[in-house]
Amino acid sequence: MVRVGIDVGGTGIQVGVLDEQMNILAEGSIPTSTAIPFAEQITLITECVLSTVASAGFDADQIESVGVGIPGIANKETGEVVKCPNMGWNHVPFRSEFKKHLNVPIFIDNDANVAALAESVAGVSAGTSSSVFITIGTGIGSGIIINGKIWNGFHGIGGELGHVIFDLNGVPCSCGNHGCLERYCSATAVIRMAREAIAQHPDTLMLKMVNNDILKIEARTIIDAARASDPLAMEVFARFIDDLAQAIASVVNFLDPEVIVLGGGVSKAGSFLLDPLSRKYKKYVLYNDQPMPKVKLAVLGAKAGIIGAAMLS
Amino acid sequence: MVRVGIDVGGTGIQVGVLDEQMNILAEGSIPTSTAIPFAEQITLITECVLSTVASAGFDADQIESVGVGIPGIANKETGEVVKCPNMGWNHVPFRSEFKKHLNVPIFIDNDANVAALAESVAGVSAGTSSSVFITIGTGIGSGIIINGKIWNGFHGIGGELGHVIFDLNGVPCSCGNHGCLERYCSATAVIRMAREAIAQHPDTLMLKMVNNDILKIEARTIIDAARASDPLAMEVFARFIDDLAQAIASVVNFLDPEVIVLGGGVSKAGSFLLDPLSRKYKKYVLYNDQPMPKVKLAVLGAKAGIIGAAMLS
Repeated sequence: MVRVGIDVGGTGIQVGVLDEQMNILAEGSIPTSTAIPFAEQITLITECVLSTVASAGFDADQIESVGVGIPGIANKETGEVVKCPNMGWNHVPFRSEFKKHLNVPIFIDNDANVAALAESVAGVSAGTSSSVFITIGTGIGSGIIINGKIWNGFHGIGGELGHVIFDLNGVPCSCGNHGCLERYCSATAVIRMAREAIAQHPDTLMLKMVNNDILKIEARTIIDAARASDPLAMEVFARFIDDLAQAIASVVNFLDPEVIVLGGGVSKAGSFLLDPLSRKYKKYVLYNDQPMPKVKLAVLGAKAGIIGAAMLS
Repeated sequence: MVRVGIDVGGTGIQVGVLDEQMNILAEGSIPTSTAIPFAEQITLITECVLSTVASAGFDADQIESVGVGIPGIANKETGEVVKCPNMGWNHVPFRSEFKKHLNVPIFIDNDANVAALAESVAGVSAGTSSSVFITIGTGIGSGIIINGKIWNGFHGIGGELGHVIFDLNGVPCSCGNHGCLERYCSATAVIRMAREAIAQHPDTLMLKMVNNDILKIEARTIIDAARASDPLAMEVFARFIDDLAQAIASVVNFLDPEVIVLGGGVSKAGSFLLDPLSRKYKKYVLYNDQPMPKVKLAVLGAKAGIIGAAMLS
């Protein structure tokens, strides 16, 4: 028997076929498109699932379960995708449509939750019973694991750490609020901080690295320039680390999981991010003379999506 | 058989003897004192427990369990109180000392957690599986219930919503950080807001109510003046409600419990607090077109401490 994990992303849908030990046996993918009707999207996804299962040497009747991670929210009971803007899905009956093609158990969850589950079973937080996975990319996503299970809230709308108020009346957020955490702790945030700093002090390696086109500055530019000891980049990155340290300490003060796992693009900075962060967040924890969560980097990378989806049950 | 609940408070220790249906059969109390040694404190507490059990018509061997709620943190496994400043306790072996007098199962937890448990079993959130209890007094305390059980973190240092960063680089907090949530959403916070407002606009009913002694302003003064339509008090209270609405929405966005319960002194404002708050917090919730947690007022009041402690297991 095999388990299928489907990772619905911004540009493509990844399909993984895994054995019982969560080893990936085969992978497939199709591009995402909001231009075609929902029923057709599901037909394409099931075709990709069947061909990937076949390429792993298995038949459709050897599929134990299918799990789907989506950048949005789903109703776990009904199998309805409540909202998934990337796919243009709004209250679509994912499970029942899928079952027309393939009558196997289907589970759906948010992609950050799915990645949190993958890391907590087969990744850096394997063997722990509670963890908070924070993905630092364009925005901030998060997944909460408590007692070994995904906790995304009673109504399925939790796990949105990026939209916790972090700076009352602060920077406007795309959600309509002001001062959301992701306006301070995401890749987008550090880029904004860098641009603001460069406007005041244009004599920086960061500008040279992008041929003076300030719009081309990425998180990587800032990190690389800070590594190269550019004073302005070091200042911006230190401020970003300090904000992130306060965000992590807030998670500790409220939820205190066993481990906090950092994933997403910015986490690729590795120990250059993790070392100063691990030193700094402790001073913001209320009971900081007590044992407290370790902060670790995710290890499954982009594969966390299909692995965690296949683990859903 | 009876259960004993002990509520360690700032000015006194309350003892309750409860039957299996969590009805209070008898109550006793002794004043708190940090002036006497730990072993003697425990002797006095056990004497109070035994006399209260006797006054309920039971013997010591009919005590099923003893639960203790403390304003601090405890190690549930070892029964050690790690920190409880009110009692001058720092790493004291509460359970083993208590067992010298009374060899029954003893459970210890933080007082906000204990109140959260009481409300979730016998109070306003009875029958729910997940809730966050927020006590709004001098500071902000909180207790998290997930799957019917207290979640105070893997290391026992969670549930401190009051020290989540809410206003980056904001008002200094006694904990050493800046912008902690309790600097904006507690009784102390609304009093600070009122004093700042009065300094600018001294022509207010609030000042008249305290005979022009600004130091005598309490949360109740502000609420009473706002009820009486004093414009400045209404403005201050509206700002407080708005900050609290953002705090509650943050809890929803991150944890999404079934219910959010408000307790503590400020919650005595009743529907004057709850009605505008229930209207306002929804707009700050990310997925606010979905079903979301109800906000309710605690109903057990000061009794939550002994009831919840007696429920510990």
